Amino acid sequence: MDVAVIGQGQMGSGMARQLLKAGHRVTVYNRSRERAQALEADGARVAATLGEAAATATVAITMLADDEAVESAVLGPDGLLQALPAGGIHLAMSTISVALCRRLAAAHAGRGQVMVAAPVFGRPQAAASGQLFILAAGPGDAVARSGPLLEAMGQRTFPLGEDPAAAAVTKLAGNFLIGAMIEGLGESVALVRKHGLSASAFIDILTSTLFAAPVYKGYGAMIAEQRYQPPGFRLPLGLKDLRLVLAAADAAQVPMPLASLVRDQTMSAMGRGHGELDWAALAEVAAENAGLPMPER
Amino acid sequence: MDVAVIGQGQMGSGMARQLLKAGHRVTVYNRSRERAQALEADGARVAATLGEAAATATVAITMLADDEAVESAVLGPDGLLQALPAGGIHLAMSTISVALCRRLAAAHAGRGQVMVAAPVFGRPQAAASGQLFILAAGPGDAVARSGPLLEAMGQRTFPLGEDPAAAAVTKLAGNFLIGAMIEGLGESVALVRKHGLSASAFIDILTSTLFAAPVYKGYGAMIAEQRYQPPGFRLPLGLKDLRLVLAAADAAQVPMPLASLVRDQTMSAMGRGHGELDWAALAEVAAENAGLPMPER
Amino acid sequence: MDVAVIGQGQMGSGMARQLLKAGHRVTVYNRSRERAQALEADGARVAATLGEAAATATVAITMLADDEAVESAVLGPDGLLQALPAGGIHLAMSTISVALCRRLAAAHAGRGQVMVAAPVFGRPQAAASGQLFILAAGPGDAVARSGPLLEAMGQRTFPLGEDPAAAAVTKLAGNFLIGAMIEGLGESVALVRKHGLSASAFIDILTSTLFAAPVYKGYGAMIAEQRYQPPGFRLPLGLKDLRLVLAAADAAQVPMPLASLVRDQTMSAMGRGHGELDWAALAEVAAENAGLPMPER
Amino acid sequence: MDVAVIGQGQMGSGMARQLLKAGHRVTVYNRSRERAQALEADGARVAATLGEAAATATVAITMLADDEAVESAVLGPDGLLQALPAGGIHLAMSTISVALCRRLAAAHAGRGQVMVAAPVFGRPQAAASGQLFILAAGPGDAVARSGPLLEAMGQRTFPLGEDPAAAAVTKLAGNFLIGAMIEGLGESVALVRKHGLSASAFIDILTSTLFAAPVYKGYGAMIAEQRYQPPGFRLPLGLKDLRLVLAAADAAQVPMPLASLVRDQTMSAMGRGHGELDWAALAEVAAENAGLPMPER
Repeated sequence: MDVAVIGQGQMGSGMARQLLKAGHRVTVYNRSRERAQALEADGARVAATLGEAAATATVAITMLADDEAVESAVLGPDGLLQALPAGGIHLAMSTISVALCRRLAAAHAGRGQVMVAAPVFGRPQAAASGQLFILAAGPGDAVARSGPLLEAMGQRTFPLGEDPAAAAVTKLAGNFLIGAMIEGLGESVALVRKHGLSASAFIDILTSTLFAAPVYKGYGAMIAEQRYQPPGFRLPLGLKDLRLVLAAADAAQVPMPLASLVRDQTMSAMGRGHGELDWAALAEVAAENAGLPMPER
Repeated sequence: MDVAVIGQGQMGSGMARQLLKAGHRVTVYNRSRERAQALEADGARVAATLGEAAATATVAITMLADDEAVESAVLGPDGLLQALPAGGIHLAMSTISVALCRRLAAAHAGRGQVMVAAPVFGRPQAAASGQLFILAAGPGDAVARSGPLLEAMGQRTFPLGEDPAAAAVTKLAGNFLIGAMIEGLGESVALVRKHGLSASAFIDILTSTLFAAPVYKGYGAMIAEQRYQPPGFRLPLGLKDLRLVLAAADAAQVPMPLASLVRDQTMSAMGRGHGELDWAALAEVAAENAGLPMPER
Repeated sequence: MDVAVIGQGQMGSGMARQLLKAGHRVTVYNRSRERAQALEADGARVAATLGEAAATATVAITMLADDEAVESAVLGPDGLLQALPAGGIHLAMSTISVALCRRLAAAHAGRGQVMVAAPVFGRPQAAASGQLFILAAGPGDAVARSGPLLEAMGQRTFPLGEDPAAAAVTKLAGNFLIGAMIEGLGESVALVRKHGLSASAFIDILTSTLFAAPVYKGYGAMIAEQRYQPPGFRLPLGLKDLRLVLAAADAAQVPMPLASLVRDQTMSAMGRGHGELDWAALAEVAAENAGLPMPER
Repeated sequence: MDVAVIGQGQMGSGMARQLLKAGHRVTVYNRSRERAQALEADGARVAATLGEAAATATVAITMLADDEAVESAVLGPDGLLQALPAGGIHLAMSTISVALCRRLAAAHAGRGQVMVAAPVFGRPQAAASGQLFILAAGPGDAVARSGPLLEAMGQRTFPLGEDPAAAAVTKLAGNFLIGAMIEGLGESVALVRKHGLSASAFIDILTSTLFAAPVYKGYGAMIAEQRYQPPGFRLPLGLKDLRLVLAAADAAQVPMPLASLVRDQTMSAMGRGHGELDWAALAEVAAENAGLPMPER
């Protein structure tokens, strides 16, 4: 299939490589061109403009940093709305707000294009190995036509019906739960450390018993070792997602005090200078408040 | 081995049966005698008094509702401190405060007895099938001598060193994380429901991807189906544990805002009349606050 | 002076009457015309359109429900931007977001008009008696020219410099503190009531000692008597203001956990069916969570 | 009247001086004797032991740091229970837990003594000038007999009925509201500062309008100027009081999320090294989380 992949960050480039491996014709585009050129060796065509990338695509994938970037990639001059051929599919795979999701789906429909929201669970390593979990929502035939691409990028796709917003809400709810988990681990690790126990032994017990899930293991290890670099997913991205969760909650009138707490603690972590670290460094707020500062390196 | 099992609630009776199955000589005691007599058919001896149960025991297990019950079983008239033979082991398996744990261990030591704290992760079903996870801390040889019993009751034992308090802290930290998980699930389920999505489908996705842990599956299903009866672990017990977590945090000067939130929401659930339901009904606070009351049955 | 007053709710109509009393020529406009016509007896001219009201005004006052209403009154067709004469002053007196405040000030400047932000502290009664406190920020000469109007409407004006956003931030911070006070009173009243004390006696002590401020007296009495009708300021308006506070906090990266709490509790009060009541009914959330429901009337 | 004043901290010594000024015969006692001897110049008799101070007293006042100190002063060897003559009044004026208040009242009653709980609102300066507000609860005639003393120490006494616990609950609820106010001021000051406004001007507006109460002025000035020394009431005392509030709330099953927040933030302020500062330094948590650290001095 002819695929354009817009956005060549850690996630997008891994996904593009998986598509190439699966035999698709992939054109990549990135605002700073070097990141795109890195894919040439893998067989990707590098487009000079977003419009050029989209012009020949059956499916255009966006994997971008935030709402602003996706909005501009779709609605901006030379954006997907203008450039994608009629009948083309916009596979929106980054985490975006529910409101933008709705707005873009309507805009595409007005141009005879189709938007499928397909956000993912998984960090860069999962993208690089085709092990993402994909939440797909949009018109049934478009989801079906996207099937071979989704299979190349993920280990499993969860269909969520015709309304793209369903995928956005589900993805945001999942990210909220990751943030809640980090806060919980941060507080409990501070507790056991101040009682003289080993944080690593504690995480080991948790993840061998009640919480034997990879996400607990991964974040738990980072927190126990206070090792937040290199970041797989930086604090400001966590803050951005919590903002989107709370916006979705506000729109539907759902008080989420735990989401508020995670948002506030994430912002506090940034205010205290941890903005360059992985979201797991949210745990440092609990540690510092308990008088357990991060050791100098 | 000669074992006394003090406390024949849902947990204690399951554990006693596993010990009987493994060939140990088990004497059971319960304040209201009928619950103890239910074990006779399985081969248990029923003691008329706690002191009688303890008098011939090599190991006396306590599995009781709260600190008050354990304190009275040990320090009260006719309690373990008086009745347990010198050299006997008190295997304290219910969830108790860090402070009481320390106090009882010292009291036993003063009488030539040994206390091993051995709280467990697992609900009644796990107790009934010998699938508990056990956190064991206390003098090394006493833990070793208790080995055959721990093996009969649990699928795995995690040794936590010589200080019984270490097991108490770890257990409490784990229960806090369960409460935090329930709150997180409650809020996120309210969010997806108000956006028109299926709560069950949402839980299914979560527990097939990021949070593929049994505890998420079990609680997630209860919350998605708003099915909180019969209770495996009632709300007031959750509240009790959160109190103990916060007491341990206070003693070590560790601010735990998420623990505070879970405590307050659990108390709110009780204030709104859900006190007879499973702790999972904590999720109803988020639902009701979002204008999603529990359907009449 | 020739003044247009756009918005004839409880606040706007009281302010218009004070301006008339002070001898100004006042033209009033309201979307639903009846509310405006009520002012004719006091000597106001009633405009059929917003544009007509603004066309002859030296100063146009807006006192509207929310950002959307103000934005449309300024930027919409037949809005102030088009209708207000060059050199005219837009005195923006309702509570608006910091972002909108900045945006409108720039838009007016681009048309040779001037915006002065002049939000107020005070409930409808204070508006009706010219006892508002006014926070005024904008170009110095425009503030000075507005002086006679501000004096007619308020008991005191606080100048906050040239940047209109300063008045918006200050007003929002003040409203946040009112919400925080209500939450504090709600929780403490629930506490004393459950300990068998009289809520009214408690409020009386507080407001005779530490908290001898009118705002504590007014809200305290409503909460002690659980009397939330007729509403002076409805819950959804409180929610709206908390949203604006948190947006201003987010823009400046300031975690405000207490603001988050007040927002969440206000939303909960609405989810539980109190949306038609005064913001003071936020206190019912604490009461209900403590098992103290509002008595039937 | 013959009065013993037990505890000669900043509060107790000011109160003793007012009693001397009013012509009462005052015997003072303090664990470290120097503080007591400072009162000799004012005409106080200094007792070598607590028992000696109480032995000749009609009324014994306790003004001590915490529950432990008061409990030991009453129930300890040579304590009030033994030393105070039958018919004597124990005027318990420091802030103590509701539970201890109940326990001590019963103990005194068992010895033919009377306890009146009479906690106060006011900082050391108010104690030194006889301007305290006093909450008095206990048997009516004992309150009446204490009247001349209460008048000498305070500007007004609020009678709260026969149950001493009523005074304890009311006092704790008031201190909770002070903590809530500090947190609110801390967050709002951080907000206005990050928007480039003057914190002092902001506090000035607040306390000239909505919140024209001395307690807002006093704490507001400290926060605006980030001046937390010398402490009038140190952070650990604030933490202690919040603990007592939450214990009273727990006993009556009242969720108080704002009290939880203030407790957690106060503990965080201590964890970050502000334990020697005034409780107002709680505001530094909000400031630091917003990236506004306290300037070096």
